[in-house]
Amino acid sequence: MKKDRQLILALDVLSQERALELAEGLAGYFDAIKIGYPLILAAGLGIVGKVSRLAPVIADLKVADIPNTNRLICEQVLDAGAGGLIAQAFVGRDSLEACVKAARDRDADLYVVTEMSHPGALDFMAPLAERMAALAVEVDASGVVAPATRPERIRAIRSVIGRRVIISPGVGAQGGSARDALQAGADYLIVGRSVIEARDPHAAASALLQSLSP
Amino acid sequence: MKKDRQLILALDVLSQERALELAEGLAGYFDAIKIGYPLILAAGLGIVGKVSRLAPVIADLKVADIPNTNRLICEQVLDAGAGGLIAQAFVGRDSLEACVKAARDRDADLYVVTEMSHPGALDFMAPLAERMAALAVEVDASGVVAPATRPERIRAIRSVIGRRVIISPGVGAQGGSARDALQAGADYLIVGRSVIEARDPHAAASALLQSLSP
Repeated sequence: MKKDRQLILALDVLSQERALELAEGLAGYFDAIKIGYPLILAAGLGIVGKVSRLAPVIADLKVADIPNTNRLICEQVLDAGAGGLIAQAFVGRDSLEACVKAARDRDADLYVVTEMSHPGALDFMAPLAERMAALAVEVDASGVVAPATRPERIRAIRSVIGRRVIISPGVGAQGGSARDALQAGADYLIVGRSVIEARDPHAAASALLQSLSP
Repeated sequence: MKKDRQLILALDVLSQERALELAEGLAGYFDAIKIGYPLILAAGLGIVGKVSRLAPVIADLKVADIPNTNRLICEQVLDAGAGGLIAQAFVGRDSLEACVKAARDRDADLYVVTEMSHPGALDFMAPLAERMAALAVEVDASGVVAPATRPERIRAIRSVIGRRVIISPGVGAQGGSARDALQAGADYLIVGRSVIEARDPHAAASALLQSLSP
């Protein structure tokens, strides 16, 4: 992924028609488009290939299974056209290695969830975030996912992962500040609702991009 | 799910044709059929409805996202015909509650992963298994998933969850003993490769069923 605009679009809609309409209109503002299971289940795996013709696709599957199942999931979504994938670290080293291998074999990126922005993430995940970030480095993942809602946590994760990429959800609708997240060390901001649910998504994306330019 | 044969078939294949052929032939030996993302991605969400006409379907999605995304995923797979769902507990209480609510609203069952059978499960999950089982009880899940490969762990989880259901993968190809797992407290054994990859899947399923009868 070429670091150009520092923005990733979370294409959080449930119909293929709306997804393609938004992706076509907004691809120029973003470095990549993130697609999750709700859209893939609704539209079928083919949506990954269709969107990937407009922008690089990061499949946000939060893959969290045994190594062989992780491999089968990653292979299918990468072969469908995704250039990147998001996996959970919580299931452990071998499960994560299966994802990294599937990605590397296809010149794709694997991002590891170290922390999440919802309240429940404090129950089990938050205390393990640094250890999961260290595991991401050990398995040679491309980068990690860390919430823009907690810039101090981005700093902590950055100190663990060195120069690997940090992609950060939580800017906009969830209250995270774009500038704070970037200053704390995020490489890419993941933006969804604040753009796609805006009355004028183009204007919202354009304003966001402008706000980031020095 | 009516406890009749104490067996769940893991339909771990990647084509709709093979899935339906196996499900049609083997449904009579099993209480439910478990379907995961590899098959759903390959065949489309419609496979859930097709298999559910032959046996109750448990969608093994290891759901592991924020509450709203979990809800969207669960709603789609339940509305497609699944009678049960498997979710990860490590993403925390609110994420799990979103799954339980989606399931309860549709009279379906939600099973919570407390522990897994692959080596990587020891990295982060195993030390938290009892706490995740307690959370499953607190959110009023139908039951939990605990590995048949470690009967002593089934006993430990049973002591936490009381009378809720335990479904156990790992019997057969992964080395778990059916009798040991049931004696340790498992309610249902999840069986995949040892049946579907047998030269004669009918004979394998029949022999397994026989071996469980008193």
